[in-house]
Amino acid sequence: MADFRTTRRVEFAATDAAGIMHFASFFPLVESVEHEFLRSLGMSVITPDPAGMISWPRVAAHCEYLGAVRFEDVLDITLSIARLGKKSVTFAYEITHAGRAVANAEITAVCCRMLPGEPPQSMVIPADWSKKFKPFAGAK
Amino acid sequence: MADFRTTRRVEFAATDAAGIMHFASFFPLVESVEHEFLRSLGMSVITPDPAGMISWPRVAAHCEYLGAVRFEDVLDITLSIARLGKKSVTFAYEITHAGRAVANAEITAVCCRMLPGEPPQSMVIPADWSKKFKPFAGAK
Amino acid sequence: MADFRTTRRVEFAATDAAGIMHFASFFPLVESVEHEFLRSLGMSVITPDPAGMISWPRVAAHCEYLGAVRFEDVLDITLSIARLGKKSVTFAYEITHAGRAVANAEITAVCCRMLPGEPPQSMVIPADWSKKFKPFAGAK
Amino acid sequence: MADFRTTRRVEFAATDAAGIMHFASFFPLVESVEHEFLRSLGMSVITPDPAGMISWPRVAAHCEYLGAVRFEDVLDITLSIARLGKKSVTFAYEITHAGRAVANAEITAVCCRMLPGEPPQSMVIPADWSKKFKPFAGAK
Repeated sequence: MADFRTTRRVEFAATDAAGIMHFASFFPLVESVEHEFLRSLGMSVITPDPAGMISWPRVAAHCEYLGAVRFEDVLDITLSIARLGKKSVTFAYEITHAGRAVANAEITAVCCRMLPGEPPQSMVIPADWSKKFKPFAGAK
Repeated sequence: MADFRTTRRVEFAATDAAGIMHFASFFPLVESVEHEFLRSLGMSVITPDPAGMISWPRVAAHCEYLGAVRFEDVLDITLSIARLGKKSVTFAYEITHAGRAVANAEITAVCCRMLPGEPPQSMVIPADWSKKFKPFAGAK
Repeated sequence: MADFRTTRRVEFAATDAAGIMHFASFFPLVESVEHEFLRSLGMSVITPDPAGMISWPRVAAHCEYLGAVRFEDVLDITLSIARLGKKSVTFAYEITHAGRAVANAEITAVCCRMLPGEPPQSMVIPADWSKKFKPFAGAK
Repeated sequence: MADFRTTRRVEFAATDAAGIMHFASFFPLVESVEHEFLRSLGMSVITPDPAGMISWPRVAAHCEYLGAVRFEDVLDITLSIARLGKKSVTFAYEITHAGRAVANAEITAVCCRMLPGEPPQSMVIPADWSKKFKPFAGAK
């Protein structure tokens, strides 16, 4: 099972008056890692398509906080796919700093056709996408 | 079982290029509701204390997204306490817009003594705080 | 010359590791005050219109910081219109806390027709809007 | 006169419902460039010091917006020092996308000694810092 690894530095704007990275700042962080992962596969979270546009609205976001990090700390982030469904994907993230566990997160996104003025319509993940995702999904 | 109800309006800065409120923006939103709830009880999430300072680092944050909301939508938010432990509290949030379910969230925070240059030390929730929390905690 | 007054509380997510409200957090703050001001006039920063949609892209933003504020401080904010042009408006903000000067800001926005897939096209501010703005614009 | 060049990609969380990068998102962006610049000189915006801690509170922030950018656009950012005073420094930023002007920004920060429970005290920029800054400051 493959994974995708990258790093991010804790920016000052992501810290709070407790002197540490704010709990809510982990969500844009892992989102930016997901988008970097998609780009590494030649994909984007927003993709034009003959029938309109395909995007991935989130249906769940979860994070457990295991240790605090501070301004300028470098975070090591490992993305894998915890669940690959017919229409959805759950990205799992392990975040560490200098080998110390910092946070684990999961984000579930649903493949949707987006048409102007209509709610997102869930759709089966296109075959070329699910093929690219498979190596990152576990045996579960 | 009591609950705490308030409202928030979707700010423009909380929206994203999909035209809706960004999934990560729900976390600062419910945090601001928690702090408003604490103020309504005469408390603050950061409290000076003879032995230093008491605060409530987060150990888990979760949100399920049930429906999209847009700029200037008014959100109705109900806070209750899903679990009241000896040292931690889990706040539960139901977010609706015009009667329609938008999101459910849970945030778990641990009561900690904060001393400069040391990691947070978990502590038993002071009796006057847990007494104030109890009416908002369910029978679970 | 009229002005528009409102308040905002410093949210925890708006603070940084220096223990104070982060300088960048003042911009979404004054933007939310602008939008509240527009709503008080029965307007919105995004308005459907027979020929498409009218919005107000920003061309300049400026803030001077005169004093620090902290979590849960209540800010008093006064909005006026520093300049009302044919196609643009400059909102001026005075922000105080308990009578003490905190920040002055100016945001210039241009009235634009927004058409999908095209850059914003500046347009003369509709007469009913400029009429509503005038009482808030100084003699300058 | 030297300058410091780096890039940033427009993150999804930095966009808004107008489909473009939100005007307020430019401020944390240029701040992160400033901090990267300081690290390139072996410095940090927060520095322990025998007499306490030295930091750089902002006294002014300004941005002019010249063109919109969208999710995943790569921004080229050039930092120089517009003014180097005895106690303050004004960083200037030119932001372009694929050669097209996007925004110009200026941030003025004051060198301050930070002592717990006291307001920041401005101080003369230490000689080794101003020496490192000089090559980036123009002849003005």
